[in-house]
Amino acid sequence: MKRIKLVVAYDGTNYCGWQVQPSGITIEQVLNQALSQLLGEEISVIGASRTDSGVHSLGNVAVFDTQTRIPPEKICYALNQRLPDDIVVQSSCEVDLEFHPRKCYSEKTYEYRILNKKIPMPTLRHYTYFYYRNLDVERMRQAASFLVGRHDFKSFCSVKTQVEDTVREILSCTVEKSQEDVVTIRVTGTGFLYNMVRIIAGTLISVGIGELEPEAVVQILEQRDRNAAGPTAPAKGLTMIGIKFHKNS
Amino acid sequence: MKRIKLVVAYDGTNYCGWQVQPSGITIEQVLNQALSQLLGEEISVIGASRTDSGVHSLGNVAVFDTQTRIPPEKICYALNQRLPDDIVVQSSCEVDLEFHPRKCYSEKTYEYRILNKKIPMPTLRHYTYFYYRNLDVERMRQAASFLVGRHDFKSFCSVKTQVEDTVREILSCTVEKSQEDVVTIRVTGTGFLYNMVRIIAGTLISVGIGELEPEAVVQILEQRDRNAAGPTAPAKGLTMIGIKFHKNS
Repeated sequence: MKRIKLVVAYDGTNYCGWQVQPSGITIEQVLNQALSQLLGEEISVIGASRTDSGVHSLGNVAVFDTQTRIPPEKICYALNQRLPDDIVVQSSCEVDLEFHPRKCYSEKTYEYRILNKKIPMPTLRHYTYFYYRNLDVERMRQAASFLVGRHDFKSFCSVKTQVEDTVREILSCTVEKSQEDVVTIRVTGTGFLYNMVRIIAGTLISVGIGELEPEAVVQILEQRDRNAAGPTAPAKGLTMIGIKFHKNS
Repeated sequence: MKRIKLVVAYDGTNYCGWQVQPSGITIEQVLNQALSQLLGEEISVIGASRTDSGVHSLGNVAVFDTQTRIPPEKICYALNQRLPDDIVVQSSCEVDLEFHPRKCYSEKTYEYRILNKKIPMPTLRHYTYFYYRNLDVERMRQAASFLVGRHDFKSFCSVKTQVEDTVREILSCTVEKSQEDVVTIRVTGTGFLYNMVRIIAGTLISVGIGELEPEAVVQILEQRDRNAAGPTAPAKGLTMIGIKFHKNS
């Protein structure tokens, strides 16, 4: 028996997110089916980031156990033959049997992209949130700086989840605007709460249009109340960029 | 009567190109229908670049004549309400009644994008041509430099068309590779033959993998024979970036 780690990229547009659920097709489900067919075993992957419906990925991570004799590095090529063109495994390798992608130290990076101009651009419609009111990127950067560090992010967590410990650490949070008017919020952290990046994005947008002062982020953190933060920005602007693990992978 | 110029962006994935034709829905047809409904007149647009099936645009240009009293600059907003989300008019303005987008001096810019890595990336699948053999960008740049200037581009023209004069002028042709392994060929010229940018892209790819020497481009131009150049690269890698007109617009 060996444990295989996959780096999984997908266009989330046509999926009901990562996690298997009754109401629609998910990334996890498509991977499980393709792997089970390929390897002739019943496979259930464990995902690192259980992304929401409509969220994209360049580098999510999943592991599974198998008895296959296919060389670990070759599994991705064989698997991609059985996957639709909106889910593509970027690499595969063997890891320790103890390696669990949600139970070890990791640094996850997400990007939230906003198309900030008066009129939408069709080729960006699935991968950016179109927002026509002008965003002041410098103000957003100031607000972002208050999020960096170890904080209680209860205000930035969907009320739908009931996690006990809402303390998380953000290692960096940057905001850039491209020539094509795409504002990119890039967040790296060692752990994230449910909807956390999308609520950060919604809050930074509120700062960018002047509804909130950059310094307000400090009070929002202190209030530990979801209503204190800005709205949850739409899923399609969010992309899981990649995950660094410090050992076993 | 006034003449209105539209700057038209589209994701060409689901269209049979620009020009109205019997076998499938086209950009021109969708624009004509939406404009005719909006303005209550029979409208037929004239396009600057009659892009092929699957080709995208950030800034193609179309003109039409109308008697509407809607302010010219507002037409794009009203029109976008009636267009699908993969066709979006970026701006509208009044131009001289004599202005014809294919009969006056213009500088058109196209980009051809190649995803050059071992495994495809789902979020780029509609907007890049996936090519896994390693491309030497420096060789492609050298080859591109030979294309700049006024030349007979008969070797770079689909045999399907029967234009008499195949002399065209390319003002610049650059090749860049991004951190995400996207090789972008950017071509600006005062006129293009049918499939010319896609044949240039296919030829530069042949140079990039070593099948052709960069200097071979000089002989290919001299031969005036489509078979001398490389293959026609797939449509989805091509995007019409924009058009500059030197007067009347």
